[in-house]
Amino acid sequence: MPSNPEWVKALKPSGPQGSELLQQERAKSNLNVDQLADFMFTQEILQRNERILNILQADPVFDKSQNYFRGRTSRIEAALARGKRLQQLQVQHNWTKEEYQAANDLISEPTPYGLHASMFLVTLREQGTPQQHKLFLEKAEAYKIIGCYAQTELGHGSNVRGLETTATWNADDKTFTINSPSLTASKWWIGSLGKTANFAVVMAQLYIDGKNYGPHPFVVQIRDLKTHEPLPNVHVGDIGPKFGYNTMDNGFLLFKNVKVPHVNMLARFSGVDPQTNKYVRPSNPSLVYGTLTYIRSNIVLQAGSTLARGVTIATRYCAVRRQFQDRDVHEPGENQVLNYTMVQIRLLPLLAATYALHFTGKSMINLYQENQKRMSAGDAGKLSDSNRGPGPEELNPGTDLLADLHSTSCALKAYGSTTAAEGLEVCRRACGGHGYSSFSGIGSWYADYLPTVTWEGDNYMLTQQVSRYLLKSARAVIAGKAGNNDTTRILTEFINRRDIGCAFDVIGNDEDLVAAFAWRVSFLTFEALRHRDEEKQSWNSLLVDFYRLSTAHAQYMIVKNFHDALQDSETKRQIDGETITLLHKLFRLFALHTLEKEASEFYSSAAVTVRQITLARTKTVMKLLEEIRPHAVRLVDAWKFPDWQLDSSLGRYDGKVYEDMFYRASELNPLNNVVFDPYPDSKVLFRKDERKDLRSKL
Amino acid sequence: MPSNPEWVKALKPSGPQGSELLQQERAKSNLNVDQLADFMFTQEILQRNERILNILQADPVFDKSQNYFRGRTSRIEAALARGKRLQQLQVQHNWTKEEYQAANDLISEPTPYGLHASMFLVTLREQGTPQQHKLFLEKAEAYKIIGCYAQTELGHGSNVRGLETTATWNADDKTFTINSPSLTASKWWIGSLGKTANFAVVMAQLYIDGKNYGPHPFVVQIRDLKTHEPLPNVHVGDIGPKFGYNTMDNGFLLFKNVKVPHVNMLARFSGVDPQTNKYVRPSNPSLVYGTLTYIRSNIVLQAGSTLARGVTIATRYCAVRRQFQDRDVHEPGENQVLNYTMVQIRLLPLLAATYALHFTGKSMINLYQENQKRMSAGDAGKLSDSNRGPGPEELNPGTDLLADLHSTSCALKAYGSTTAAEGLEVCRRACGGHGYSSFSGIGSWYADYLPTVTWEGDNYMLTQQVSRYLLKSARAVIAGKAGNNDTTRILTEFINRRDIGCAFDVIGNDEDLVAAFAWRVSFLTFEALRHRDEEKQSWNSLLVDFYRLSTAHAQYMIVKNFHDALQDSETKRQIDGETITLLHKLFRLFALHTLEKEASEFYSSAAVTVRQITLARTKTVMKLLEEIRPHAVRLVDAWKFPDWQLDSSLGRYDGKVYEDMFYRASELNPLNNVVFDPYPDSKVLFRKDERKDLRSKL
Repeated sequence: MPSNPEWVKALKPSGPQGSELLQQERAKSNLNVDQLADFMFTQEILQRNERILNILQADPVFDKSQNYFRGRTSRIEAALARGKRLQQLQVQHNWTKEEYQAANDLISEPTPYGLHASMFLVTLREQGTPQQHKLFLEKAEAYKIIGCYAQTELGHGSNVRGLETTATWNADDKTFTINSPSLTASKWWIGSLGKTANFAVVMAQLYIDGKNYGPHPFVVQIRDLKTHEPLPNVHVGDIGPKFGYNTMDNGFLLFKNVKVPHVNMLARFSGVDPQTNKYVRPSNPSLVYGTLTYIRSNIVLQAGSTLARGVTIATRYCAVRRQFQDRDVHEPGENQVLNYTMVQIRLLPLLAATYALHFTGKSMINLYQENQKRMSAGDAGKLSDSNRGPGPEELNPGTDLLADLHSTSCALKAYGSTTAAEGLEVCRRACGGHGYSSFSGIGSWYADYLPTVTWEGDNYMLTQQVSRYLLKSARAVIAGKAGNNDTTRILTEFINRRDIGCAFDVIGNDEDLVAAFAWRVSFLTFEALRHRDEEKQSWNSLLVDFYRLSTAHAQYMIVKNFHDALQDSETKRQIDGETITLLHKLFRLFALHTLEKEASEFYSSAAVTVRQITLARTKTVMKLLEEIRPHAVRLVDAWKFPDWQLDSSLGRYDGKVYEDMFYRASELNPLNNVVFDPYPDSKVLFRKDERKDLRSKL
Repeated sequence: MPSNPEWVKALKPSGPQGSELLQQERAKSNLNVDQLADFMFTQEILQRNERILNILQADPVFDKSQNYFRGRTSRIEAALARGKRLQQLQVQHNWTKEEYQAANDLISEPTPYGLHASMFLVTLREQGTPQQHKLFLEKAEAYKIIGCYAQTELGHGSNVRGLETTATWNADDKTFTINSPSLTASKWWIGSLGKTANFAVVMAQLYIDGKNYGPHPFVVQIRDLKTHEPLPNVHVGDIGPKFGYNTMDNGFLLFKNVKVPHVNMLARFSGVDPQTNKYVRPSNPSLVYGTLTYIRSNIVLQAGSTLARGVTIATRYCAVRRQFQDRDVHEPGENQVLNYTMVQIRLLPLLAATYALHFTGKSMINLYQENQKRMSAGDAGKLSDSNRGPGPEELNPGTDLLADLHSTSCALKAYGSTTAAEGLEVCRRACGGHGYSSFSGIGSWYADYLPTVTWEGDNYMLTQQVSRYLLKSARAVIAGKAGNNDTTRILTEFINRRDIGCAFDVIGNDEDLVAAFAWRVSFLTFEALRHRDEEKQSWNSLLVDFYRLSTAHAQYMIVKNFHDALQDSETKRQIDGETITLLHKLFRLFALHTLEKEASEFYSSAAVTVRQITLARTKTVMKLLEEIRPHAVRLVDAWKFPDWQLDSSLGRYDGKVYEDMFYRASELNPLNNVVFDPYPDSKVLFRKDERKDLRSKL
């Protein structure tokens, strides 16, 4: 398409410019953005991110201008080029894992090396012996071999015990035979497998002498190191396009009796003794489950920043976009959309949620790290994931911080990622029609994030684990065997007060507000316990109750963590009183808005009266919206997303929304380099086709 | 990619096959699928659809096998080819508008001619004079000129009065000058404009002698009829990729003082007298607003079938997919996912909603058609849309069926399309990990449907119109001027019973269940009236209440319409008693599940007690899930979607889910025709590239 004619170039948006409106927004609030950002992320990390951003922006491989226009193949081609360059840069700048991750966050799309750099290396490191580190890990770290982690199968997702792939021990030649006995045994969804990996860690049912010992990890070469073609009796490929995540080559994989040597079974925790041909039992599985807790805690922290991207874009755009005059205030010109309460009620509680999730995630990670220290000091909790080993019911939660942490991380992973995913869609719609354009930057971000609600424990499945733990804790409390953690504390308080009832002043008193959330969790726990233990209801019939219980637990934890963070002396040292007051309003907005959404559970647990909730909704929440509104733009600014990362016309820091939309549509859009033949009776489709090549070069 | 090796071809899914499982499902229920389908759609229309399906399936242009793999340009190229062929077929088979629409529904993607065939033709037909029909409509119907309807602008969506494009009357040469005074005046989002149209109906502010007469429609040629290049001083193009709808060329359009003759202003309702140079006032705008009511009623009906596609896919897949053993019932093998109550509570209320929306949409359309008859008999209602003319407050709702219908259509459009969009995402997630694959067929369908929540009245904006009407009706009831329609009936009943209170047996009595929904609407209406008229609260501060009020009204209408449909003698004549009993369970599931979701409003309006809602949730709803479960697959079968239309691996009628997933991934996926070079230090990206051309041919 010829570039815009002069008369078009001369046109400006009408009325107050977006840049002026955002300047006014920033002038209206005296929130110290830099101070808040330093508190949240540390100055050191913000500076590091800027340094990395400069490196990436200078490199044409990372140019984002064609991202939204590319089809699947050229997107993944570009992602491959970027993955390669990223690895070169990591070597060149001697980046730490965190710096490499920061670069990935700025690029904001999965690369085909994603699962190599994460799960493949981690699994080799954590589950391999020193000999196996030498054999596989060193080459993998040098990208001489590229791997993936092949667990899920076409017919088997959440239920790992149901995997069909087999690894049969051959006592005669001391090898394992890896085999896919059916179509549903095909590995599926495996990141980096489709086109990139030449090795895979394959989870397969270990068989020794006809007996099944459950799923174990095996290192298997799948492609030739020179030609990159599949090895004989290996069928491997990409599983095709997805709702998002299309820069990743999620793959399928089938084996027809492929033999691997004894050393290819990752043997740090368990293995086969090649002399006796006997199974060697796992030594300390809790380390693995600790990792899972860590991954989930990180998902909680990320849920905050994931959602914050959408909230940043929508808040800025709703300050720039004007639509209709206010019905009562007859000022000239249209009203900023952000002034409408119907927009505020959608965006500002989500803004509050970004901070709530951030502080909760941080607190989870701190707890995890504390616990790691205890564990290395010998006070190790024995924890497990029911999908992968014995269930938490076998534990004594009373004495176990890790069990509590694990359960909390399940509840928060499920609730946090659902909140982020659904919140992003709310942000997209709050942008009105333009939210539907790829240039909003929200749609693709949402689509790429969605798998998080399913992986690392499906959000619905996880709620069963949480409930199992809470029931177990309740039984311990009743039996007088309660230990020392927050869950047993709130359950015990509930038992003690149950007969005298409660009276929480949720509007006037923050501690009461937190306590009301705790009361509801306890109420639902003992209700569920009664259904299960006394009324002997089936597990299946209680799944809906368990989902509600887990959600209630997560909401309590977030409200409590947000509240604790604001009481913390470190917080008061690092940020000024006005900022804390504003964050406190966000805390109250999050808590009261959640309370109102879940009103019926608060009623039925008798934690709060109908009158209180009506007041909370019609008065307190509306008042908080009004008080937070002037600070909205600065509050999203504090998340410090560079424009390059957001890649959004609507969310630009400078407010030049319409100029950017127009530029991308008219100057970057390759479809404008073709001319249609519009007549149905003509056999020509494109009368002219002057598209430039979208393919990537390194 | 070479086709699958023999050993792969020999593999089957393990365990009971999907085809067996769906056969068992169908054997478990004796629901007469054909009878129910005939009742919903008529046999005649089902047969017509099959006839059209056969025509489309036989034509390679409509082959869908590469749909999910194509990038934007080749998708739109394929859509152009299909649009052309469709028009040829329409001529060849002498298709009616309904048949043409049925073909489009089967193809299930927008074509670049979409807005020509709908809004352009409709606007010319309805707003053009006989002379203009001759000049424009006849050519447009013959596809000699291709058009679009250009209303929305870059800076102006919902608020039509805020449009910036001007049409200035030139008294000297009897022409209009069409001009875009700013960048935000650029037409934007206009379907079929980006690449296809050579004409546009442009909504522009009419200026005569310096005075603004508001937005009016002008026919403007924008591209050369031979070269298809833009005319001088016209800047036009495609606005770029979107979250969905990428087979449509939504476009932008700017004018620099382009002159059109007097005859190009569509003049059936208003115009400029070329002799006097005076504005001629609109004669009967209510006809246009009637059309809007009709469009919205159709959106309600479509919401049912839109959602039903997702529910069909998810229900069938959840009957095929098995995961985990039941915790209490230790049967061998894994349990069908559809047996888990947590899956049932997500899917079955949506299944109920599909029927509820269907019967409600039908009833709305019937009412509309009745009213059209009355109008042509002279009893015309004067109705308007606040976006496009005077607001409903100027009307007397008491005497006006159309006003009531218009308000109901706004409430139902907002609620129905939101329910369908969000329900589709619930269906997608209910499919677990595979829901994320494009082959699920839900993601793209959802993405294409999403604009419906924004267009034909933004769902949030519409709720204000509904509330305005309800407030007006309440004032009339209080003033004793209530007329004869359902809204005034329920408001009057509420007033009469308010002081003695209510006692609805929502679990035991269906009429009471419907009445509880009516009571809540009335309660919220009078609450809002008190806030607005007595407490003088600002309109803006009440927007959240208005949204809730409109939602409550829509839910009441759906519950009432579903209930009425089952009481109807025609229903009892056409379908057997067992089927009615089953539909009645769906009615109760929809109503009680909705009641429980909105529990806090039912409490605070004192329509229902806490105890009742707890019982409804824990007993009645769970019981209904159990009773409906065995009929789930047959109930989705009755929607009669051909596999070709669904284009879904997961939703196949025959249950061959895994075979189809595998086939599409391994045999159709073009990415498997390239070989990566996986090493970061190599400059090569694709070591081999044997992709076939994805371009379309006619």
